[in-house]
Amino acid sequence: MPKFNVKDINEMNKIFRLNLINSCTGFKSANLIATKSNDNISNVAVFSSVTHLGSNPPLLGFILRPQINERQTYTNIKSTGFYTINHINSSIIDKAHMSSAKYPATVSEFDITGLTEQYENNFHAPFVAESHVKIGMKYLEEYSITANGTILMVGEIVHLLIDENILKNDGWLDLENADTCIISALDTYSKTKKLKRYEYSKPYTELKEIEG
Amino acid sequence: MPKFNVKDINEMNKIFRLNLINSCTGFKSANLIATKSNDNISNVAVFSSVTHLGSNPPLLGFILRPQINERQTYTNIKSTGFYTINHINSSIIDKAHMSSAKYPATVSEFDITGLTEQYENNFHAPFVAESHVKIGMKYLEEYSITANGTILMVGEIVHLLIDENILKNDGWLDLENADTCIISALDTYSKTKKLKRYEYSKPYTELKEIEG
Repeated sequence: MPKFNVKDINEMNKIFRLNLINSCTGFKSANLIATKSNDNISNVAVFSSVTHLGSNPPLLGFILRPQINERQTYTNIKSTGFYTINHINSSIIDKAHMSSAKYPATVSEFDITGLTEQYENNFHAPFVAESHVKIGMKYLEEYSITANGTILMVGEIVHLLIDENILKNDGWLDLENADTCIISALDTYSKTKKLKRYEYSKPYTELKEIEG
Repeated sequence: MPKFNVKDINEMNKIFRLNLINSCTGFKSANLIATKSNDNISNVAVFSSVTHLGSNPPLLGFILRPQINERQTYTNIKSTGFYTINHINSSIIDKAHMSSAKYPATVSEFDITGLTEQYENNFHAPFVAESHVKIGMKYLEEYSITANGTILMVGEIVHLLIDENILKNDGWLDLENADTCIISALDTYSKTKKLKRYEYSKPYTELKEIEG
């Protein structure tokens, strides 16, 4: 059974470590984050770190590495205050992955990849038309992680656009119907198949499944 | 097409909002975080917020809500400095979900759920024996999110234990072989099916798939 300790990890080949450490957290959310500069140049890039922070107020976070090609996302969010989060589905995994290449700030990854900008409710940032779940975000706070210089960006949901046949009566989204994909490591896209939905777990009480 | 703005979200029924906002980020990593108190009472709970922060040094983060039943995880990490992150696979989704119930601090969720504690390399925190990918973590930093009082916990990987037939030659983990599951909303567990693995994306260059 492969075992690695901190010394093994530090001494690894760089690419091997990149693949291993990026794989080891399990599957990750697959989203496109889109912004538009004050000069009206749009930007879209794939992110696998979008994380739920709370429901009331509705807050989401994601991790940025501002020293690389995520810089434009950071600059646009800080200067305009707005961004969108859009689910990646199986029909756009190639375009999503293309958006992760390092293009100059003067180039829109929407033009390069063929993804379609969608504007709603006079919201400054573009939504990705091809996504079936789209979130309009207002920037709130940033936290610089001392240990490695990454940044946790915190924002509030101000718009939520959901295609038909995804929203259920109790607010639960059928992400399989949305064809929402997931990412593993840096480069791998998968689809999903539901196993079980459970009721809220109570102490010393048998687990109940929610059907349908 | 269902559309919600910030006012709609604020005025929603609480359960509807909880389901909707917890669904809207897409699928989430499915992990069990295990700790042991200084009094040797072990604790294990399901977390869907484990996030990659960086490969060198190998850093992971996760989000805690210390006011609810994640309090024991927080207390044990802060007092002992160590925890483990263990992938949830399809054979333990019921036990994983059971661990999310509110048990008193004197009770070990290992005993309640039937999950098995595994100790390795004199590491203080227990690993979950049933997991096929297990990570030993050293606590580094915490960040309190002003907007809602949640906490980002940051730690460094110090041990990585991987079952057979998961690690590939280039460090990439085949998480489908690991039977690693994913979570959506608060209560739904799914398995995955790989669509494509791509090479690193370069500007103005056709995307190449990595086979196998």
